[in-house]
This record gives sequence, structure tokens and C-alpha cells, in this order.
Amino acid sequence: MFRIPKHIGVIPDGNRRWAKKHGFNKEDGYSYGLEPGLQLLHIAQKYGIQELTYYGFTVDNCKRPKKQVMAFSQACIDAIKMVQQENATIRVIGNTQSACFPEELLPYANMELQPASSKDIMNVNFLINYGWEWDMKNNWASRNIPRVDLVLRWGGMCRLSGFLPIQTVYADFYIIKELWPDYEDTQFTDALQWYQMQDITLGG
Amino acid sequence: MFRIPKHIGVIPDGNRRWAKKHGFNKEDGYSYGLEPGLQLLHIAQKYGIQELTYYGFTVDNCKRPKKQVMAFSQACIDAIKMVQQENATIRVIGNTQSACFPEELLPYANMELQPASSKDIMNVNFLINYGWEWDMKNNWASRNIPRVDLVLRWGGMCRLSGFLPIQTVYADFYIIKELWPDYEDTQFTDALQWYQMQDITLGG
Repeated sequence: MFRIPKHIGVIPDGNRRWAKKHGFNKEDGYSYGLEPGLQLLHIAQKYGIQELTYYGFTVDNCKRPKKQVMAFSQACIDAIKMVQQENATIRVIGNTQSACFPEELLPYANMELQPASSKDIMNVNFLINYGWEWDMKNNWASRNIPRVDLVLRWGGMCRLSGFLPIQTVYADFYIIKELWPDYEDTQFTDALQWYQMQDITLGG
Repeated sequence: MFRIPKHIGVIPDGNRRWAKKHGFNKEDGYSYGLEPGLQLLHIAQKYGIQELTYYGFTVDNCKRPKKQVMAFSQACIDAIKMVQQENATIRVIGNTQSACFPEELLPYANMELQPASSKDIMNVNFLINYGWEWDMKNNWASRNIPRVDLVLRWGGMCRLSGFLPIQTVYADFYIIKELWPDYEDTQFTDALQWYQMQDITLGG
């Protein structure tokens, strides 16, 4: 492949629909999204993607039933623990001032970007208790996160749902109809193939 | 139809590709986009859409060859003249401080929203010499434009290209593969049908 996106945004939607479909409680879906997240990271590394940003959860998501809030928070904590084992620089972006922000993740939160010591080290960002309003009201709090080239969204919806509005102004969006726990590497490689055919103008 | 978007964003992309395909110079494509714009407005009125925002041209577009810049500016002026004949409140949003902003459109520019005197009057907005950076740097200059429910983009690309990043955070995007001058009403009604099936959560 000749043109590889530098920075991919990942919207892992569909965990609750997947749980329902398989006869589980809605909140049980999130843990089935962990392994897919790691698998995607590995194939992204293989293709030389420099940066990934996962949409963890938002300030608005925290208005959901408590069981769900606890379940997706825990899944995010577990995801970050998994990525700690990888060759990656982890950053967490979100509102740390509310009770919804998991204490365990404070050490990663809203850090200035450390230049990666080697180009083999991937930047992996997680939006945790993120909100586009919070981002804008805090003088573009996420401004250290670079432009997103390609947004991948699972679960069939064609929308950003508040995902980094400024970084995505020129991004291409690729929608995968399968639910996130049904992730397969071919979905990712199909997206990269599709991305080859997009004409990048950056608004010009 | 039971659920109609209140505010539709229109990205009329593909004029230059259409011109090339028909053996014209690139800059000759824009005038073929005028009639489609009016046709879309009429069908939107018929379905009770309250507000339309057309993506005219951007600050970045003005870096293109002068012939093209003159052609798309003129097409926008002509489009607004056409909409003046309709039952609509016209607003223009964009950077009036640069030479690229057409003088003729100054009377419409960056006005406060006038409440429509009757609900039969549609709000029709044009982004003219608009830039997302200009918008953000000017304390969200477009803040009087309300949330966009549905973005329709012609020409096959699945991206926003800087179109109102804040208003579109929760918008659904519907991509039409045909080029803008090949507009047909069925493309619009198909989009409305598709919109029925989208589950609106506003980030919740």
C-alpha cells in the first residue's frame, strides 16, 4: 500500500446491541470489545500507523444506567492495562474534574505529548469522560492530539457523535456495519484499501 | 414520514469532476449546480424542512486558480439571487474581511438570526468564504446557526471538509455518489428515508 493514514480514530460502537443479540445484559457487551481493540492495535502497528485514538466514553454516556457506566469504565481501564504491555505511548484525554473519571487513569490524563523516543513506538490515545463541549470550553483541551486522517466506526452509524470535532475536520469516515465485538482484521484492511482511493485535499 | 430533520447541511461536491467528464473546463461546472440547488430547496420546503445550509466556498478554496475562484463566487452570488425569489430568510456566514468575500453578499453576512415571522418561511444559510479556523478563532462565529441533523454530501466522499464542525457533532452523514450537477430529487428522498432508520441519541 502506498498511502497509509498517520492517525486513525476508532469509534467502537455496538457493544450493547451485540450483548442484546447474544442474550446478555447490555452492560455485559463492553468486555467483549477488549480483545478486538488489541487485535486492531496489532494490525495497525504492522501497517506502520503512527497513532490511534480510541473513543472510550463521553461525559454524556455517563448519564446512562449505573451498571452500564461501571461496565464501560472498567472496560476502558482494562483496555489501557492491556496496551501498557505493548510498545506504545499512552495518553488519556477527558474531563478529570468529574466523578465519572476513573482515578486509575489520572496518571495518563491530559499530558503534553511526549515525543516518541523511537518511530517504532506508537501513540495510543483514549478519550475517557471526553466531551466536545468540555474540549471547546477549555480552550481546545485536546489540541495536543494531531489531525485525524481516517475515522473508523463500527456498528453502522455514519456520524461522529462528538469525536474530536476539530481534529476530524478533514478526516475521511469509513463505516463498518458489523458491531464492534464482531471485529475482524479484514474490516481494518478493507478500510485501508478504501483509504487509498480517497483524494486528500485538506480543504483545498 | 414520521421523523423529518429540522436542519439539513448540503455539501454540493463534484462540479469540477462533472465539468471534466463532460469535456468542459473545470470552472464551467459550477453554473450547472445552480438549478439543482433550487430544486433541492423546493423539495425540502415540500417536506417541511425548516433550515438548509449550503456549503458555498471556503477560505481554502480561494487558493485555487483564479478562474475557478471567480466562477464559484459568481455561482454563489447567482444562487443567492435565485433564493431571494423564494419564501426564505437568507443568511450568509463567512469571513467578510478578505478580498475573496463577494461585496454583493455583504448585506446578508453574519447577521443575527431573525426569528422567521411565520413557520412557513424557511431559513436558508450559505457558507461563503467560510473557514473552520476562522469560525473557531472568532469565538465560534457561526454560533447562531443551529445544530445540523443531517448532512448530505454529493460526489462520493465521506468527509466534512471543514463544514460547521461544532454544529455537526451529532449529525448523521449521508453520501450520494452522483456528482452535484447530476442531482435528482430521488437522491434527496432516499436520504430522508434513510434518516428515518437512524437512531438519534445526541451522544447519550
